[in-house]
Amino acid sequence: MSNFKSFASDNYAGIHPEIVQAIIDANVGHASSYGNDSYSEKAVATFKKHFGDDIDVFFVFNGTAANVLSFKAITKSYQSIICAETAHLHVDECGAPELLTGCKTLTLPTLDGKLTPEIIKKQLYGFGDQHHSQPKVISITQSTELGTVYSTAEITAIADLAHQHGMLLHMDGSRISNAAASLGLSFKEFTADAGVDVLSFGGTKNGLMMGEAIVFFNRGLAEDFKYIRKQTMQLGSKMRYIAAQFEALLSNDLWFRNANNANEMAKLLASKIERIPQITITQKVDANAVFAIIPREYIPLLQQVSFFYVWSEEKSEVRWMTSFDTTREDIDRFVEQIEKICSESWKSICV
Amino acid sequence: MSNFKSFASDNYAGIHPEIVQAIIDANVGHASSYGNDSYSEKAVATFKKHFGDDIDVFFVFNGTAANVLSFKAITKSYQSIICAETAHLHVDECGAPELLTGCKTLTLPTLDGKLTPEIIKKQLYGFGDQHHSQPKVISITQSTELGTVYSTAEITAIADLAHQHGMLLHMDGSRISNAAASLGLSFKEFTADAGVDVLSFGGTKNGLMMGEAIVFFNRGLAEDFKYIRKQTMQLGSKMRYIAAQFEALLSNDLWFRNANNANEMAKLLASKIERIPQITITQKVDANAVFAIIPREYIPLLQQVSFFYVWSEEKSEVRWMTSFDTTREDIDRFVEQIEKICSESWKSICV
Amino acid sequence: MSNFKSFASDNYAGIHPEIVQAIIDANVGHASSYGNDSYSEKAVATFKKHFGDDIDVFFVFNGTAANVLSFKAITKSYQSIICAETAHLHVDECGAPELLTGCKTLTLPTLDGKLTPEIIKKQLYGFGDQHHSQPKVISITQSTELGTVYSTAEITAIADLAHQHGMLLHMDGSRISNAAASLGLSFKEFTADAGVDVLSFGGTKNGLMMGEAIVFFNRGLAEDFKYIRKQTMQLGSKMRYIAAQFEALLSNDLWFRNANNANEMAKLLASKIERIPQITITQKVDANAVFAIIPREYIPLLQQVSFFYVWSEEKSEVRWMTSFDTTREDIDRFVEQIEKICSESWKSICV
Amino acid sequence: MSNFKSFASDNYAGIHPEIVQAIIDANVGHASSYGNDSYSEKAVATFKKHFGDDIDVFFVFNGTAANVLSFKAITKSYQSIICAETAHLHVDECGAPELLTGCKTLTLPTLDGKLTPEIIKKQLYGFGDQHHSQPKVISITQSTELGTVYSTAEITAIADLAHQHGMLLHMDGSRISNAAASLGLSFKEFTADAGVDVLSFGGTKNGLMMGEAIVFFNRGLAEDFKYIRKQTMQLGSKMRYIAAQFEALLSNDLWFRNANNANEMAKLLASKIERIPQITITQKVDANAVFAIIPREYIPLLQQVSFFYVWSEEKSEVRWMTSFDTTREDIDRFVEQIEKICSESWKSICV
Repeated sequence: MSNFKSFASDNYAGIHPEIVQAIIDANVGHASSYGNDSYSEKAVATFKKHFGDDIDVFFVFNGTAANVLSFKAITKSYQSIICAETAHLHVDECGAPELLTGCKTLTLPTLDGKLTPEIIKKQLYGFGDQHHSQPKVISITQSTELGTVYSTAEITAIADLAHQHGMLLHMDGSRISNAAASLGLSFKEFTADAGVDVLSFGGTKNGLMMGEAIVFFNRGLAEDFKYIRKQTMQLGSKMRYIAAQFEALLSNDLWFRNANNANEMAKLLASKIERIPQITITQKVDANAVFAIIPREYIPLLQQVSFFYVWSEEKSEVRWMTSFDTTREDIDRFVEQIEKICSESWKSICV
Repeated sequence: MSNFKSFASDNYAGIHPEIVQAIIDANVGHASSYGNDSYSEKAVATFKKHFGDDIDVFFVFNGTAANVLSFKAITKSYQSIICAETAHLHVDECGAPELLTGCKTLTLPTLDGKLTPEIIKKQLYGFGDQHHSQPKVISITQSTELGTVYSTAEITAIADLAHQHGMLLHMDGSRISNAAASLGLSFKEFTADAGVDVLSFGGTKNGLMMGEAIVFFNRGLAEDFKYIRKQTMQLGSKMRYIAAQFEALLSNDLWFRNANNANEMAKLLASKIERIPQITITQKVDANAVFAIIPREYIPLLQQVSFFYVWSEEKSEVRWMTSFDTTREDIDRFVEQIEKICSESWKSICV
Repeated sequence: MSNFKSFASDNYAGIHPEIVQAIIDANVGHASSYGNDSYSEKAVATFKKHFGDDIDVFFVFNGTAANVLSFKAITKSYQSIICAETAHLHVDECGAPELLTGCKTLTLPTLDGKLTPEIIKKQLYGFGDQHHSQPKVISITQSTELGTVYSTAEITAIADLAHQHGMLLHMDGSRISNAAASLGLSFKEFTADAGVDVLSFGGTKNGLMMGEAIVFFNRGLAEDFKYIRKQTMQLGSKMRYIAAQFEALLSNDLWFRNANNANEMAKLLASKIERIPQITITQKVDANAVFAIIPREYIPLLQQVSFFYVWSEEKSEVRWMTSFDTTREDIDRFVEQIEKICSESWKSICV
Repeated sequence: MSNFKSFASDNYAGIHPEIVQAIIDANVGHASSYGNDSYSEKAVATFKKHFGDDIDVFFVFNGTAANVLSFKAITKSYQSIICAETAHLHVDECGAPELLTGCKTLTLPTLDGKLTPEIIKKQLYGFGDQHHSQPKVISITQSTELGTVYSTAEITAIADLAHQHGMLLHMDGSRISNAAASLGLSFKEFTADAGVDVLSFGGTKNGLMMGEAIVFFNRGLAEDFKYIRKQTMQLGSKMRYIAAQFEALLSNDLWFRNANNANEMAKLLASKIERIPQITITQKVDANAVFAIIPREYIPLLQQVSFFYVWSEEKSEVRWMTSFDTTREDIDRFVEQIEKICSESWKSICV
């Protein structure tokens, strides 16, 4: 069964062939290091085609850094970052935001991974009180850790709330391409145009070998970011190889093809399992994740077929992620296995 | 002249073709993320072939991180790190060690970039005094920022001094392969066997796309390093692609071929220019750098031929780095240009 | 009404006269600075009389530091601190723990400010997972921010849970004397003997001008604490004046007299208002605080009489703190005013 | 000999009786905590009488904090602080500036503890280079750690240099009163008027129990300082007692009397020992310190008479500090002992 593709995470997938080719193409002769190269220049220009000229873009190595350095650029240590309690930055970064920024991370419960103005307001107090970490950043994830996607209107409402309070809106876009493909919108429409101030633009989960970008829509915010990136160990020397990957991803529709395939495969998976009575899909399948409650005893059996993560031990809820290289065959075979386990299990129960 | 290879830095060079091939070969199907993959396992095993079984190895993205996280693993914030005043960690990291560790960096002047026990002793005081940052780490660079190489005996003497004071010895080996090739020794002989406690093992400057390793020789030191790496934003998700590069570099003699070529080309360059009367070579050419004082007015002319860095404006001293892909033709053409400028300049002076 | 004592906080009170006298008595001639003086020696000996010889004691300036430096001594940045969501360290320190330790603060809801093993267990997971901040410290407040007091058995149960998980138990004892007086126990019985590892011992709220102590019951934990205190700006030069205050507080029963008076006055206040129908006391009055829900419109009227803080705007819940210098007359006059407002209000409602 | 006053440090002295009285006078009834009290208001007004209205003043516990929080208010972590290599902030704070700010501390050698524009310029490079910690603050100590005092013109020249480079000038005034008394100037003349941007105003070494102030001359710099102070654990609850001490020090000429006495006593000591042939005074005696090279074997004998610190073991150089309570009798007796040791030593040498 080793030829099964995993539904564990979109970062289990490899590098898209067009990205590999871009690396090979960039591997010619010498180039200035630390981003002073023509590949970086070109990639920045391509970002501007997507987001408009009024941006600053910086490349970093990974998603942890994209989020944490976004915060470091726009906060002081006595401020706080508000996010959903499911936010990756809170649950899966081993405290990186706290260490690097000194800020408090304040979390709020949600049903679907999406903050709303109403939910956020519970943390909007204590402004001006020296004893209270000052709320400064709202961070939303698009698409969310639960596979849901914010509409442009929802984002705009949060941005407005943030700005009314002198705060800033950050978007963790480690899966932003999946969100764009899902919404059928350009990146700009639900970021810059919706009031987002800083964006972590994800590459790795959409087919890059490695590489994430931080996009500042309010250029003043990035004034001294080059020093921040360097001091926090995120300036690569052979930067052309990250730039070239982004150029390949964004200069044609590769970003869309990859993300759209992942989304389609998640929808396909969902559509096939929703008719299985023992399985309950728990979140809207807006992007490339399917969350489902399945009988506890199926989990180890199914993980042997293809590894995936249990989201909630308590609720027996699992997460299945699809990726740019997930195929219909992968889905079919996986569903087949699920059905087989279900039916066997059923029989054993009947007997 | 654009087809000239630069003598600016070994990180202007690209990726060695065998490394590119290793990336391509690793790009098959899905693999567990964050280092739980067979490529990482294999690369670790290969490091153990070089350094012995009693090590812990961790991959990070760049050299800044390799050094800084080495320090973070073995210091507390009230301690200090002693290094040469030319140490890259002091002059070129924008304060990354201070930010990430809280430690003071204490520098000492040297003639050739190499610390000695006698020099180091000037900073070895104040032990037990709560007002004084406690000396904890001595960091040496091998090969040094001035292109010189420590002998095994020199390293052992420093390690002994460190250990006598309850301190630890760190080696910044961003160019360790150049040092090994220069010394004609295995890595182990002048690191683990000489008393080094923690090593930053460089890959990027020896032909990798990106990737550095931290090698702990005293396994207790690495006990909780996985959390440190994660929290400081240096854990890559698609780790297999860093591991595979190291595997390609170290599982055959590629590390040696690359480093040795760079060293040989530096020696060739030095041997050709040492007979030019207007140029004075200022450091021993042990590895892949040539430092020279040249007439101030030559510098911009020569930089047009092939960019390089001025090391000391004051002394009109320049640095020429060679790399794994520097060829005899590159050297010949560069020397030709130097000679041309010298002779023209000479004529203009004579006239 | 300016001669009314405030029920705002026990830190609105001044210095107890015996403490003032101790400062005057210590003001003789020269003394070594930074704690190398006979007053400090004596104060440490007095702490040992209370807690046993197997402790280390360090003085710091304030309660923020006592808590934060306790954590800094026993954590690494990738670990987390678990506390009640009402914990002062979480809600009133402007992010000091996060900034100084890099740790995450994980909060848990409680009804009465007291954690229990059952509540704490919700955060005890993810051990060994590099993506997850490693739970390391449980911090409880004694007496709590809600004026309740843990029994020895309750503390022991939490300590056992902590130690079973390789964690440590910290007690924020900014009002520890109030707890001891309430329990009728020696300090040692519900700290060292109950399994507490580190204690913030409060002085300021019990009649000192300023001064808090950190008591380590596990001596290994304090090994390098002197450097931590110095580097975090909490080493005073004229230390004798903090030491002399603690000596005066702890060498006779002043700590008890002060705390007991505050507790008694809170009980008196509670007993008098519990019969007023418009007021509902919301927490057990174990120590020196009374929490009560009162009609919203009374609050500004009553604050004019004597300022106090609203605990929950939403619930119209207020906090009244008593202190070492609160008198029966203060209580009588305050209750008189409450009754007056209640009866007037009642009349106005009836009319 | 125990009734001898020490020449070890001015922080060995106690509290001036007028300061003690101020604490007693402030110990009346309740007062708002955290600086919202009438004593704090009054003390701030008194600072404005000295420095002009256009300042912001904040009280902190000790000198470490006054310096470090000055830096924290005006730097970002990728910047550097330039100071003399003898600066207290560099040699005696156990790395507090690095830990709290993340900045590099760059030191420069001086002969007399005083920086000059010429000396400072050696560190003024690398502006705009992301690899280089950006120079942001010049910190000078007034009076210096070597007992010398900057003239107004010298300060102005440094301020001008700083401002030309977009940098700020900080003054460590832990002994600023000694400098003012020495110069015969008001505080304002050599701080605000000379271009200082931020001042650590010392109280403890001039007769306070404890307490230092940070004075911002450029009000924009202090905008969010209240949060910084709180988060770094330097906000005291019973603030009135620090404020009242400053009020007593600065509302009449106590600051001058104390400092002037210390200065005069240092001059007296110097004038008496300069005629002793075995002793060489090594620094100008501008303020309250005498530095001298004395025969190595005298040191332990003399330390038995009255403890003091050896400044340089290598040079056999000692430091004698005088304080507000040093008397002519103290000087006479100390000199008598020196002379006795000298003459005995002389005899033993002659024999």
